[in-house]
Amino acid sequence: MAHEVLIVTEAELRNAVPLDLSAVDVVECAFAALAEGSVVMPPVMSMDLAEAHGEVDVKAAYIPGFDGFAIKVSPGFFDNPRLGLPSLNGLMILFSAKTGLVEALFLDNGYLTDIRTAAAGAVAARHLAPSEVATAGVIGTGVQARLQMRAAHLVRPFERVLVWGRDRDKAETCAVELGRALGVEALAMDDPADLVAESQLVVTTTPAKAPVFKAAWLHPGLHVTAMGSDQSGKNEIEARVLAEADLYVADSAAQCARLGELRAAERAGLWTRGLPPELGQVVTGLTPGRTDEGQVTICDLTGTGAQDTAIATHALRAVQAAGAGTRIET
Amino acid sequence: MAHEVLIVTEAELRNAVPLDLSAVDVVECAFAALAEGSVVMPPVMSMDLAEAHGEVDVKAAYIPGFDGFAIKVSPGFFDNPRLGLPSLNGLMILFSAKTGLVEALFLDNGYLTDIRTAAAGAVAARHLAPSEVATAGVIGTGVQARLQMRAAHLVRPFERVLVWGRDRDKAETCAVELGRALGVEALAMDDPADLVAESQLVVTTTPAKAPVFKAAWLHPGLHVTAMGSDQSGKNEIEARVLAEADLYVADSAAQCARLGELRAAERAGLWTRGLPPELGQVVTGLTPGRTDEGQVTICDLTGTGAQDTAIATHALRAVQAAGAGTRIET
Repeated sequence: MAHEVLIVTEAELRNAVPLDLSAVDVVECAFAALAEGSVVMPPVMSMDLAEAHGEVDVKAAYIPGFDGFAIKVSPGFFDNPRLGLPSLNGLMILFSAKTGLVEALFLDNGYLTDIRTAAAGAVAARHLAPSEVATAGVIGTGVQARLQMRAAHLVRPFERVLVWGRDRDKAETCAVELGRALGVEALAMDDPADLVAESQLVVTTTPAKAPVFKAAWLHPGLHVTAMGSDQSGKNEIEARVLAEADLYVADSAAQCARLGELRAAERAGLWTRGLPPELGQVVTGLTPGRTDEGQVTICDLTGTGAQDTAIATHALRAVQAAGAGTRIET
Repeated sequence: MAHEVLIVTEAELRNAVPLDLSAVDVVECAFAALAEGSVVMPPVMSMDLAEAHGEVDVKAAYIPGFDGFAIKVSPGFFDNPRLGLPSLNGLMILFSAKTGLVEALFLDNGYLTDIRTAAAGAVAARHLAPSEVATAGVIGTGVQARLQMRAAHLVRPFERVLVWGRDRDKAETCAVELGRALGVEALAMDDPADLVAESQLVVTTTPAKAPVFKAAWLHPGLHVTAMGSDQSGKNEIEARVLAEADLYVADSAAQCARLGELRAAERAGLWTRGLPPELGQVVTGLTPGRTDEGQVTICDLTGTGAQDTAIATHALRAVQAAGAGTRIET
């Protein structure tokens, strides 16, 4: 029986799949499914290619009720910049959840991962940030710094954004771009302590291996999302923050214990409450989220295959609606 | 930087990548690399999708010296026949071993797996079968029964082929097709014992869960390749055959202990020699293969990711030479 596979390039995906509330909503559904325990998500498959100075990760997840399931391949080859190529690239494959047939190949070079990662930040902000956020702050100045603030603005339309990074010039550039994109006041800050003091919502987006966020900076009515750590060597948040906050929530408790902020806190003996609640449990109401405007809340995002399946399913609908992509009959 | 990805359909692959000696040779190189211990091959990633009556396996392997590495996704959805669709489908993705960029997507629905599996049978026959094979026999009547005999004929150009299967009609059809394809005498047999008695080379190609090959049938100057078992519940060869043979060789010793004939033999206490030698060690001369025309040899094939990387790399060259496939700029 003839069958068509849709091939979609990064440029086509950037046009058809913007970071918007529909992307946030579909990723929120994935977290809800994770909390309900119905998702099939095998451990990440990893290949360490020392000879090529590269690594490859494969993630997959099946979410009951979704039309498709995605498998994502993420190669990182760290000599690529010398060749004028990006280190990170990769693709997602979307399969029919009913027949296993390949539906679409998204040659996204990580774009859909960027979107689903930012969308998770918006889900965290929606359920955990104070209801009124006048000022949001971001630590880090890369792609996710921009996307996390754009995502947060969808659910908490703040009037001011503050940016801090080790490189002042990059922070300035990031602030200018965010100010324009969101139509808000935007400032690069000299001191991250000031950024946190003036913000009700902070997102850390760095690959830091030593904390860039100090416990001394916590203040009533603050929500912090830490999305930078996704490997066992990374750590953005000072360990005692997790226990000192009123609520600490993980995207995946087991994964945060291996790859997220929870790892450092547990190793330091500063988290002794076992597995924390998960974002999906807050989404579904199994666990209370923020119950008081004065609370301090923390969300730890390491990235899950369920988000990939959610964004890939969403992308197929968006690309089909836009009439984009190349159909290959097979 | 603009980059092109080649999309190749099953029909294009069937035209451009025949089962021939060049396919056998490239798969032999993969076995040699496996023996040298330089291959990076993570455990298979599996998803059991009970709700959809489906399963998905992901295999990957990196072979130093090969231009590319492949990741293969093999879904099996067992309600598909009711929808007029095949149960098994899937694809291979070939990445540059130097940059990690996607080079090609092979929408092969398992065709390349069929070829690399048959090619492994030819590698086994080349190194383990008697130098003169007048009659070859196959147990099983499916796609691999045909391909294994065609592959064996490339390296041992026998004059007669015998076929046995539980379904006599299917055995007849298979024999007729093989006789035509190879230009040899071809007979469907009533009794597998007779088939083995008259053959110098036998391949078992069944999904049997209880042995279809009996130890009593062993005779001097016989080589047997068992390629049907690739799951822990499968078993084609009576357990004591492995120890009674002069030489028992595995494609991957560790994998055969989990998924191959070795599993049943070890569980029955009839194999106590630890891990057997591997086919790649025979290919490279690390372990002697057949040293005497009268020996009895057995090869256990469960399938490895290294073969996928080998055949995918080979397929890219063949498809490029044929000018086939669709180029997508990304």
